[in-house]
Amino acid sequence: MKKIILITGAAGMVGSNLISKYINKDFQIIGIDSLKLGKLKYIEPFQKKKNFLFFKLDLSKKIKNKKIENILKKNHLYEAWHLAANSDIQSGINDYEVDLKDTFLTTVNTLNFINRYLKKNTKFIFSSSSAIYGNVRGSISENYKKMNPISNYGLMKLYSEEYIAQIANKNNFKTYIFRFPNVIGDNLTHGIIYDFIKKISYNKKILNVLGDGNQQKPYSDVLEIIKCMIYIKNKKFLKNINYFNIGTNEKGIKVREIVDIFLNKTNYGTKPIFQKKKQGWEGDVLNYSYSTKKINKLGFKFKLSSKQVVTKIIKNSVKLNIK
Amino acid sequence: MKKIILITGAAGMVGSNLISKYINKDFQIIGIDSLKLGKLKYIEPFQKKKNFLFFKLDLSKKIKNKKIENILKKNHLYEAWHLAANSDIQSGINDYEVDLKDTFLTTVNTLNFINRYLKKNTKFIFSSSSAIYGNVRGSISENYKKMNPISNYGLMKLYSEEYIAQIANKNNFKTYIFRFPNVIGDNLTHGIIYDFIKKISYNKKILNVLGDGNQQKPYSDVLEIIKCMIYIKNKKFLKNINYFNIGTNEKGIKVREIVDIFLNKTNYGTKPIFQKKKQGWEGDVLNYSYSTKKINKLGFKFKLSSKQVVTKIIKNSVKLNIK
Repeated sequence: MKKIILITGAAGMVGSNLISKYINKDFQIIGIDSLKLGKLKYIEPFQKKKNFLFFKLDLSKKIKNKKIENILKKNHLYEAWHLAANSDIQSGINDYEVDLKDTFLTTVNTLNFINRYLKKNTKFIFSSSSAIYGNVRGSISENYKKMNPISNYGLMKLYSEEYIAQIANKNNFKTYIFRFPNVIGDNLTHGIIYDFIKKISYNKKILNVLGDGNQQKPYSDVLEIIKCMIYIKNKKFLKNINYFNIGTNEKGIKVREIVDIFLNKTNYGTKPIFQKKKQGWEGDVLNYSYSTKKINKLGFKFKLSSKQVVTKIIKNSVKLNIK
Repeated sequence: MKKIILITGAAGMVGSNLISKYINKDFQIIGIDSLKLGKLKYIEPFQKKKNFLFFKLDLSKKIKNKKIENILKKNHLYEAWHLAANSDIQSGINDYEVDLKDTFLTTVNTLNFINRYLKKNTKFIFSSSSAIYGNVRGSISENYKKMNPISNYGLMKLYSEEYIAQIANKNNFKTYIFRFPNVIGDNLTHGIIYDFIKKISYNKKILNVLGDGNQQKPYSDVLEIIKCMIYIKNKKFLKNINYFNIGTNEKGIKVREIVDIFLNKTNYGTKPIFQKKKQGWEGDVLNYSYSTKKINKLGFKFKLSSKQVVTKIIKNSVKLNIK
């Protein structure tokens, strides 16, 4: 009877970094990924390990997989980390099906697939998003109820939260719903730094920036995010459904500053070109800040500021991908 | 430039009865139905009419239909009645995909299909359900916020409401969300009377009733429901999103009483057999009553009591289907 850690979105940035934390411990890890955004190379280091099994499965469709079912039947589903989602918000703007399928249906199908193994002593951990709040002024706590997501991505994350809560109350298992800020780290699959690196590899003369550059958002390091989630999920909670804003408790960094740090690092003399419109894309939340008092009270504080994180990841990524 | 009335779920009980109200007026009617539950014979009377066009389409999948698009492009989408849904709550208990696809995705795909034609002067009318409330004591008003649906059907109706609200706020059109009680009428496709008629056609000696017979629910006549919706949607509202509980303002009729009326009418000396469990099925809401003060204040009152409606429809259905 082994303790199973099931991770959907295993080949993504969060998933692959999470596996690093579990791989040398006494767990059997089941990783699932459609490889739409996740990359096989991110999980290659784990493939030779006996306690890691990878399944390429598209969770946007109803799942039948006897091999996984047999493992779950004979062992103990200790934790399920549901990280699979479309993480490229912009791609869901023009095609509503992207987030419907890859963000919402992945949640519904994952829960229904592992439903009978989600017992009272199983922890279900979900990577939700600050995008569920939409454009809100002031510092938002977890109890804020007037959610108004402005992207399909945010809406489908919100529906996912609701669906998880519904099933958790019915089946009586513990859920940890973490509302992410912008998360960056090694193994990027999307986002501003990822885009900049791609753009500059094609054209070193100019860098087209989405929006007027004044969008300001908090960024957190994926390693701190994972550390925080592990810290929190090890605490005991009475309720079945527990929500947490995670990330730094600051207003974040402006797109302009990210551009400066990036162009300073790449050092090609590239000229940044900003747009006149404020939003980088439809569904771009211009600025938000949410309260992380709840996790702080529980004893966790993020160490790196948005600027420090951005600087660190630009340094790592530019080194890895451009040189 | 014609005024278009688009009706999804056109071959269902509500849809087919609604078409009767519009068919002799100066509208072009577009009817859509997957015919999973709806029946062609219910819309046969309209098929010879010039102003009625029927399309067999499964709205649980992304829709592309150039013929409908061309009509919508050249004319004015006056009203969209979105009635398509799985209406057989029990079928969604064992297979979560039924309501996910036929109740929720039909809503998402319908809205996205007609999205660009939903203008400020278009009315979008949706048949929601009292099932979104779940097991609640007391009389529930439209402002009640602690929804806790206990069936997939209720949950997917709730998600549909939310999705409609989201799009209506974005695109700025008027929506009328009607939360239905149990609705019965001619052209039944499901429900207790439909089941009883099927059961007794196989076996006249005994009638197996689901649950202990004490479940009590309000029933309304489909013709009154339609009358009410038409009355309400002709009123002007300032808000884009308007919710209405519709039906009688009474506690309803017990399953036991329905059994009595039915067996009295069929008159075969059939013996009813009740179960020990209270719920007829998982997801069966035992009793609820909701406040219809809002529609009453607007000037609409349902005339028939649950008992009168049940008696009327049993009389009609038994005559039509059994003799």
